[in-house]
Parts: sequence; structure tokens; C-alpha cells
Amino acid sequence: MKKNLIRENYTMLFDFYELTMANGYFRNGFCNRITYFDVFFRRVPDSGGYAICAGLEQIIEYIENLKFDEEDIDFLRTKGVFTEDFLEYLRTFRFTGDIYAIPEGVPVFPGEPLLTVRAPAIEAQFIETFLLLTLNHQSLIATKANRIVRAADGRPVSEFGSRRAQGVEGAILGARASYIAGCAGSACTIADERYDVPASGTMAHSWVQMFDNEYEAFRTYCEFYPENSTLLVDTYNVLKSGVPNAIRAFKEVLLPRGIRKCAIRLDSGDIAYLSRKARAMLDEAGLDFCKIIASNSLDEYIIRDLLQQGACIDAFGVGERLITSKSSPVFGGVYKLAAVEDENGMITPKIKISENPSKITTPHFKKIYRLYENDSGKAIADLLCVHDELIDDSKPLTIFDPDYTWKRKTLTDFTAKELQVPIFKNGKLVYKLPSTEEIRNFCREQIDLQWDEVKRFDNPHTYYVDLSQKLWDIKHDLLNKGQSSEK
Amino acid sequence: MKKNLIRENYTMLFDFYELTMANGYFRNGFCNRITYFDVFFRRVPDSGGYAICAGLEQIIEYIENLKFDEEDIDFLRTKGVFTEDFLEYLRTFRFTGDIYAIPEGVPVFPGEPLLTVRAPAIEAQFIETFLLLTLNHQSLIATKANRIVRAADGRPVSEFGSRRAQGVEGAILGARASYIAGCAGSACTIADERYDVPASGTMAHSWVQMFDNEYEAFRTYCEFYPENSTLLVDTYNVLKSGVPNAIRAFKEVLLPRGIRKCAIRLDSGDIAYLSRKARAMLDEAGLDFCKIIASNSLDEYIIRDLLQQGACIDAFGVGERLITSKSSPVFGGVYKLAAVEDENGMITPKIKISENPSKITTPHFKKIYRLYENDSGKAIADLLCVHDELIDDSKPLTIFDPDYTWKRKTLTDFTAKELQVPIFKNGKLVYKLPSTEEIRNFCREQIDLQWDEVKRFDNPHTYYVDLSQKLWDIKHDLLNKGQSSEK
Repeated sequence: MKKNLIRENYTMLFDFYELTMANGYFRNGFCNRITYFDVFFRRVPDSGGYAICAGLEQIIEYIENLKFDEEDIDFLRTKGVFTEDFLEYLRTFRFTGDIYAIPEGVPVFPGEPLLTVRAPAIEAQFIETFLLLTLNHQSLIATKANRIVRAADGRPVSEFGSRRAQGVEGAILGARASYIAGCAGSACTIADERYDVPASGTMAHSWVQMFDNEYEAFRTYCEFYPENSTLLVDTYNVLKSGVPNAIRAFKEVLLPRGIRKCAIRLDSGDIAYLSRKARAMLDEAGLDFCKIIASNSLDEYIIRDLLQQGACIDAFGVGERLITSKSSPVFGGVYKLAAVEDENGMITPKIKISENPSKITTPHFKKIYRLYENDSGKAIADLLCVHDELIDDSKPLTIFDPDYTWKRKTLTDFTAKELQVPIFKNGKLVYKLPSTEEIRNFCREQIDLQWDEVKRFDNPHTYYVDLSQKLWDIKHDLLNKGQSSEK
Repeated sequence: MKKNLIRENYTMLFDFYELTMANGYFRNGFCNRITYFDVFFRRVPDSGGYAICAGLEQIIEYIENLKFDEEDIDFLRTKGVFTEDFLEYLRTFRFTGDIYAIPEGVPVFPGEPLLTVRAPAIEAQFIETFLLLTLNHQSLIATKANRIVRAADGRPVSEFGSRRAQGVEGAILGARASYIAGCAGSACTIADERYDVPASGTMAHSWVQMFDNEYEAFRTYCEFYPENSTLLVDTYNVLKSGVPNAIRAFKEVLLPRGIRKCAIRLDSGDIAYLSRKARAMLDEAGLDFCKIIASNSLDEYIIRDLLQQGACIDAFGVGERLITSKSSPVFGGVYKLAAVEDENGMITPKIKISENPSKITTPHFKKIYRLYENDSGKAIADLLCVHDELIDDSKPLTIFDPDYTWKRKTLTDFTAKELQVPIFKNGKLVYKLPSTEEIRNFCREQIDLQWDEVKRFDNPHTYYVDLSQKLWDIKHDLLNKGQSSEK
């Protein structure tokens, strides 16, 4: 990880209304009122069975660096809507609250809080934009990458999409999220330097075009990089020119040196057809150890189809459809007020009502348990509880569908584990950041605890996110009150 | 614009293969070989009639800041594939070439070079990833924003999508690109501080929830911000609660102060229905000056439909579907070798052949003319020429379709203007950067020079990008040679 990296300060990256509200809270004496906000999402991208949570590391960095400089204050003054008292307050603004979050790499489901903030109203409100942006972006890419990795069925997938990413962080943190979720590496060099995402790459078409002919381009490359000879074979004609020239270069340069490691890359045309033909030509030439890498507008569906059609591909490079999550480019995480706390520590749950039932929030300061079947070790359901509830997994537990409450199930031989962990307490970081590699391994382990039915691309099993009886009662009490009152 | 901004250095943001190739060019003595690369795209996102070119300012900043630090060199050494000579060369690496580009804000079409690099092979190759990433991202968002602005038909559109953007630059430079292409402003505060994109915003649902009741929340807001009272009316029930409470707050707080400027915002439910009902209630209450702002998953199609259905909306806030260009989230700009130059200044055109005709490049160092009809002032076609050709618009000019060459047209009363301008010469910036506001105005003027037929959302007229006879001949000569030779 780069040591002397000076990251930009993103304190000013907030939706303007965060500050008009904050200024209002300040003037209205809500400055020290403790609030609880949850980040959760309503739908898994691509109608998948689960999402992969990612982005916490960058949120921690942001929280720790929160600071308005003089120029920021002067700029805000020009907007003409903030009081001088408030601008003075911003001068020493820091985050002093608590944050609980699900660690990066965990499969997560709609409706459960990925992250919970407990902080004075102004602080909790202020950090909304950056928190959502970061969790939404990295969780989106991690979720997509994991689908693509699953499709490749054990074959390495490299992330190749920097040039089509939406901005530099789209590229850099997109590479990080892809790696966490199972990609073997990335073409994005800076993601290697900063986040230890293994970067690799060999040649573009321009390398081939720079030489008088394709063979010379290949031979030169093999001579310079005998241990890393991956040749791009589609600059002119894959089967008539690219593969024969590659075979000749491998035989003339690598074999005499005893090197039995090389690859060709197919980047256009019908990959299923070309890969089978190329495989046969390579085998015929005694280069059965030569790998075939495919790229060119791939995603999980095309990879699955290619493999079903018997394409001879050993590894994949995936670009724009991964780095933008092209088929589903938005992760819809939201940030909603769940409760407020008075000076005596009394917590009042808050709800957001909507005519659309899926937009109704689950109130209160909560905790999440993931329930595992002891027999198989697999996850059965997640259970949202009020923060002070304790699940005793030595006793039977009855869970029920929060919409269709007659659908009940009693668990006996199970283990309950809390999902969220403390990240900040009173503004102090209390969480030890894992390395990117550790997050990646943890992600793989956590996904292994899910049933295959949840991992299907189409019509996956809907994993249960239930409410405890206590939380369900609180929510429905508020809903009934909300419907009957004239606000 | 923020003066003391320390931007991160993105020298290390490159696909790894740029450097394996560069190292190879270095070893092979191609170090000083002058190459020409073009950036162009093949399809307009959303099947639109034109794209809006954006991102040049950030490319300039990148080029000027190119520099490997010691830590970068040390990191690259660990990869084990670069020679010490090459790493030493990187220590003093700078861009010394020329860049020509179409200025930001110009409507552009498939197949024409948005940007052309003339530089030693290593330098030209190295900057590929960042150039593409930047032009692709900002052109994508500018193109989408312009569609949405057109749909709103004169009503202001604000960009609201930071929380759903793909990374921080997705948000910040996305806001910039949106503003260039016609948005009235953004919620993204840092985009205002850095790029003078007007930021504004008022309240979220959490503001309303923080108070004991909706009316109190509204009244307090009006008292704090009497000149900026936009009230979000859908926290509980728009017509039964939100609008009546807003009317009461406006009447009790604003009217006594003689303020006749306010708005309500609808963020859920059926906007067509709710806006008409709300309009009637506001008018009934004597608040005919109160504006209605709509948000909630809008894009150009929904906005067009809402307006056709008589929705009473004065302004729009657009989030995720703009900031990610959700329906078409990739701008497919590519970077292709067009020519190489020998020590005597002799330029050899280069072509990339593909079985897919749309993937064949147009070779050579080129210039682009946009041809305008003198009568209407409107643009008729773009013409790609060899760099040393001159179009004399005082004489008739015959242009022809490069695929169906029998489709010809002779222009008489026309004006030809070059599209690309010099940006860097011998590594020195020779271009005066316009302000964001100037780019925005320029964009509007340039779009006004396009026919309405090109501006349709669906099945727009295909604008012609033709080749001069000389360039066409060179391209077809290379194509014929490529087909007949065994490479």
C-alpha cells in the first residue's frame, strides 16, 4: 500500500441540503440531539440473490479526515444561507458519534442495515452523501464481480475496465471491489500500488501495429517477456495470422529456453468458435500448455453461455460490463432516520411511511443476527432485533415472515451471530482494518455459508430477513398511528 | 474555483499493459518514434443522434502533472518485468508531444477523432487509460444530461445523484458534465466550490421526521430560509398532509413578509396526478406563484411522458438515472494508432482491420471540418481529411457516403470550420481553458447549430461523418493490402 499517498479531502462532498438542514438543526437547538440513521438497500442489482457489502475502508478514511478549511468556510459564506454562528461551528466540526457496520465482503440482503450511525443530528445528517456514495459504488461493483466470478466457474477473471469506468475512483475502487469479490486481479496499476490488487497486462493492438509484421511483434514480445508471453492474436486475422504467428514465436523463443508457460488472448469475433479452433491448432503444435484468455464485452451471462458451448477458455478479462455494472449500474442504498434519543438516553423509534410498502422503513436502533443451521453450517435467515434484545441460540427460536406473518418456522439446532461490528465509538476508530487480501478471503468464506439456491443468476431463492416479534410490534404500532393521525 | 486544492496525482492510473508495451518500445528502440493516436467512439449512448464532448480540462491537468515519484518507481520494480534503464527513464518522464482536441461542449459523432495525440510511442501509449477514462466518463454524463434537459423543454433540471454515483469523481465531475450540457445546477456542493456548478438544496425526509409534526417542520424551515422555502411534501401523505401543511406554513410565514417565492417538492407517488392535484390546491389557496418541483427516478422518457400528460411541474431534480447514465452507462471511446512518423517527418498511416467493419479504424493524421449551410447556419456534415488538406469553402465541394459511395452531394453555399484545436505543442499547454460557464454557453450555441432531426430521442437523423477523397483512398488502399497480405 502506498505510504506517501496524499488523498484529497472530501469533506465538501455533500448534497447541499445536508448543510441547510444542519444549519437548521443548529438554529433550532437540535445540535446535540442524538439520532440513529440506517443505510440499507431495497433490491439486489440484476435481481440477484444477495449483494456483497464493500466500501467501509474508504468511509473510515473519510470520517477520520473530516475537516472544513478556511476556504471551505469562505465558500459556504458566499451561499448566503448559513449563519455566522453555524460557520464558526463548522470550523471545529468533527465526527463524535458511533458507527456500527457489516464488515466488507459479507453477503447482504435487502432491508437490513449495512451501517448504522448514532450521532448528534448535524453530524449524522452531514455524512449521508459520502456514506451512501461509497457503499453504493463499491457494493455495486463487488456484487457484479461476484456474479461474473461465479459464472467463470473456477477460471480466473481479471478486471480490465478502467478506461470505461465512471471517473478515477470508478476505476481504482472498482478494481478494489472486484478483487474483494473474487476477481484474480486487475489491469489497474494504481489499484495494485494503493490496495494490493494484483495488476497485470501484456499488449494492445497498437503493439502489433508498431512492427512491420505480426510475427516480429510477437517474437520481440516473447524475447522481452519470456515468462509473461500473452499474445493478442486478433489484430489482423485470428486463425489465418494471429494463432500461427503466435505458435511460431512460442516455438522459436520459448521452447528453446525450456519455458512451457504462455497464452494467447482473443478480443473479438466469436469466442466459442475461435477458442475451439485455436485450442486445436495449439495442441496440434505441441503447445497444449498454452492458455487461452478471452476478453471483449463479457459478462456473467456470456461467460456462462460460452462455457456451456464448450469454448476452450482458461481465463477471462472483463471490462466495461463489470466496472460499470452495465446491466444494473445503480446500487440503491438509502440513509434513513430510525430513531432519536433524548437527554436521558430514552430512544424514540422513527418511521418513514410511504404509499409504496417497499419504501416503508423499519424503525429503531437495531441489531442484526445471522442464523446458521448447525447441521450444514449454512445461513438460514437474518433477524433484525431491537438493539437490546439478545438471541439465545441454545433455545428454540420462532421466526416469521414480516409480511405474511402466518409463515412461521421454529429453529432449534442453530447458531446466531451478530453481523454489525463497532467501527467508531464517540468518534474514535475502534475497528482494526483488515487487508484487502483478508477481506477477499473473508468474502469467499462468507459466501460459502450461503446455499447454492441463493447464488442463482435468475430467480434465486429469496433469503429471509425477518423482524423479531418486539421489533415487528414497534413497527406496526407506528404504522397504525401514522395512518390514523392527521399530521 | 478552489485555489488551495491539492489534487491527487494519477500518473499511476494506467492499465498495466501500457507500461509493459512502453518498456518494450524502450528496449526495442522505439523510444523516439513519433506516433499518432486518435480517440473516437462508435455509437452514441441511448442510440441518440449526437454526444457531447467533455473532460478535456481534467486531461490537461493530468498531462501537466505527469510524474512518477520514488515510491512509484520502487513499486514498479517489484513487478519484476521492467528493466532498470526503463525505470530510470521513468524518473524524468514527462509528456513532450502534441495534443489536438475538440473543445468541451461540442456535439460530436461516431468515427471522428475527439482528440489526437502526436508523441513518442511510449508517451502516447502511456496516457491512453486516463484519456479514455476521462473523456468516456464526462462525455457519457454530458450526453445523458443534454437528453434530459431537452425533455424538460425549458424547465430547469438539477442534478441530484451524488449518492448513487460510481465513486467521488462520478459525483463531482458528473455534476460538472451535467452542468456543461445544460443542467441548471447540482446538489453536489464540492462541484460548486471546485467548478462553479451552482449548488442548491433544501430538505430531506429526515428534517420532517425530526420534528413532532410536519407542520412544525415546515414552519421552522420557512422561518429559517424565507427566501429558499422548498418543502418536501411526501413524508406522510402528499395531498392529505404535505400540501395542506405547506400551504399553511407559506401563508403564515412568507405572505406576512411579502415573500411570493416558494416551492414544494414531490418525491414519490404518481407525479402526474399529484402535481395536478397539488397545483389546484396551491392555486385555490392563492399561492399560484408557488412552484412544483418533481424528483424520484426521473429520466428523459419519464419527463417527456409527464409533460405530455399535463403534469404541473416547474422544475426537475434528477438523480441516479443521470449521474450513472443508467440506461446506457458506458461511453465506448477507444484509442487507436493512426500513423507513425520516421526521422524525416514522413508519416505512414496505420490501420486496425477487423472482421466487423464498424471496428475498422480510419488511418492517418487527420483534421476534421464541420460544414455549415450558410442559408440556415446549421451543420450539414463533418468531413475527415488528411492533416495537410485544405477545404476551400468558396468553391463547390462534393462529399460522399464512405460506405455507399454513390450517395453524393455537392455543397456550394457553405462554411467549413475546423473542429480540433491545438491543446499541447511539444508538451507545452497552448490552449486557454474556458470557465465552466463559458463551456456551458458554448455547448448551447453549438447544439443550436444542429437540426432538430438530429436531436430526437428515438431514431434520430444520422449525421454524416464523411471522408475526403484523399483519405478514403488511403484507407481503402490499406484495407486492400491488409486483405491480400499474409501478415
